[in-house]
Parts: sequence; C-alpha cells; structure tokens
Amino acid sequence: MQRNPRSKMTCSVARATEVVGERWTILVLREAFQGVTRFDVFEKNLGIAPNILAARLKKLVEAGVLETMPVQDGGRRREYRVTAMGRDFFPAYVALMQWGDRWLADEAGPPVVLQDRAVGAPVPRLSVLSEAGEALDHTKIRRVPGPGASDHLKRRIAAEHQMEQGR
Amino acid sequence: MQRNPRSKMTCSVARATEVVGERWTILVLREAFQGVTRFDVFEKNLGIAPNILAARLKKLVEAGVLETMPVQDGGRRREYRVTAMGRDFFPAYVALMQWGDRWLADEAGPPVVLQDRAVGAPVPRLSVLSEAGEALDHTKIRRVPGPGASDHLKRRIAAEHQMEQGR
Repeated sequence: MQRNPRSKMTCSVARATEVVGERWTILVLREAFQGVTRFDVFEKNLGIAPNILAARLKKLVEAGVLETMPVQDGGRRREYRVTAMGRDFFPAYVALMQWGDRWLADEAGPPVVLQDRAVGAPVPRLSVLSEAGEALDHTKIRRVPGPGASDHLKRRIAAEHQMEQGR
Repeated sequence: MQRNPRSKMTCSVARATEVVGERWTILVLREAFQGVTRFDVFEKNLGIAPNILAARLKKLVEAGVLETMPVQDGGRRREYRVTAMGRDFFPAYVALMQWGDRWLADEAGPPVVLQDRAVGAPVPRLSVLSEAGEALDHTKIRRVPGPGASDHLKRRIAAEHQMEQGR
C-alpha cells in the first residue's frame, strides 16, 4: 500500500480512503459483499474492463480486504473471498451508502434498499452513539492523542483544545 | 458533480466515493468537523498547497457538503461551514476512521482517539444494527430494488436472489 511518508498521513481516515476510496474498488467490494467470488461474475455485473478489474482485485488482495483461493472444482480457477478485514468494513460501506441515498440519489429515490434478511425490514440508519446510546454529532466529539500519536500531532491537538476553550 | 452516465453508476456508494473518496477532500472535511472554518487554518493544519486546498474546498462547496459565507468581521474574508449534508456524513467518517484504526494503523496504535466530550469516554465502534438492535453483517442483509431502481437493476437483483436460492 502506498502511503504518504508525512506524519499527517498517519490519519486512519486518509489511509482508509487510500484503500477503498476509488470508485471501482468500492464497487468490487460491493459485489463481494453480495457473495460474488468469481472473476467472470465481477466482470459481468460491473461491466468493467478485465484489466481494470484484475488491478482492483489485486489491490484489494494486497491490502488484505479480499483473499484468493482455488475454486474447489479440481480446476485451476481461483475465487475471491471477503476476509475479516473486509467484513469489518461493512459498517463504513453501509454508512457511505445511506449518505449517498439521502443526499446524492436521483429524484426517484435510492436505486437499492438494504434489508435485514431475517425480517425483511430496511436496515436502520447508522448513527454514532455514545456508550449510553445517545446520538453524537461532530460537535459532541473531541479528538485526543492515541497511542500512535506523533509529538507533532500531540501539539496540534493541544492547540485545538486551547482554541476551543478560547471560543 | 461528475457522474458516469451508465445506470450502474446510480449506486449510492459509488456516488459517495466520487464526492469524498479523494484523500485531501476527506482531510479537509476532517478539519471542518473539528471546527476549522478559515482558509489559512485549513492550509496550516493540512500542510497543503493553496491551489489544491482551493480546489478541494470548491469541490466540497459545489457538492453541498460545505458552504461559504462572509466572516462577521466587516472585512472581505469568507469562511467555510459544514452544511446539513456535511453533518450527515459524520457516521460514515467515524466508520472509516474506526476501520482504518483497526486495520491500517501502525504498530503503535491509532494516532487519534475520538471521545464523547460529555463523559470523556472513547466513541464505541459503529455497527450495522437491525431494528431489534442485533448486529448485522453482510451475510444477514439482502438488496432489494429501491424506488430509483432501473429495469436493468431490478433484473440483476432478481437474478441475485435466484442465485442465492440455488446455493
């Protein structure tokens, strides 16, 4: 994975964007979440050029989001499976989709609705919740240095907190 | 906003990625969530070239994620504010960050921890929850055509459901 060497690029959101921020990459992952495992099915569903598909699958395998293994049919074909890292991306995927549905859909409405299979009900909107279950927006959250914070970042966050107190 | 004219690109996740999938764009939004409003503060915090910053701010304003208004100091300066659309992106932002923290951080750990200001506790991990509050992974969800589904998409989703029943 390519990373900008500057300390600012340790940001987890920036790194996440580097892995999944490209349109075809997230569409490949969308298909994988729906159970697609074969190269030809990804190709057909996405209407994507084989060389671009191969590059995106390679990127997702190298990043650890998908893994490739032989198809259990005695042949040479390989299939792509979602890893634990890929499964763990699902909340971010759903949150992105819900935001797109709400703010970027055509007038007719969202093209796809996600349903809870067990009961056939639409998946409720994701919220950031406190431990007590209260919804948190960006004004109710503060950043504090984590274990991987550089000295530069610690100083910046301290400056942010001072700026807030001055408001 | 540029959109691929093909029907597949009605996908809300693809559209969301087009708006926020670029690294600098999401970093600008990160700063805005932290209360940054002035061009010079974005520039300093991000260490970004002014022309790139101007382009990213313009893109976010055109997309409706930020809005620009005169600074209330009688001068000509303008500031950038998060819109309702921008605020609504916060769950996706937190979900991306938590995924990056978990899977892409350096060995030392995440550089930044988000805390609930009111109680000083870390923000719990976001999950996709059913109406009954049960965690849902990608295997517990199915896609159904939404109000904006094209006939092509309806046929594809019907084919997916048939494929599932055949498993």
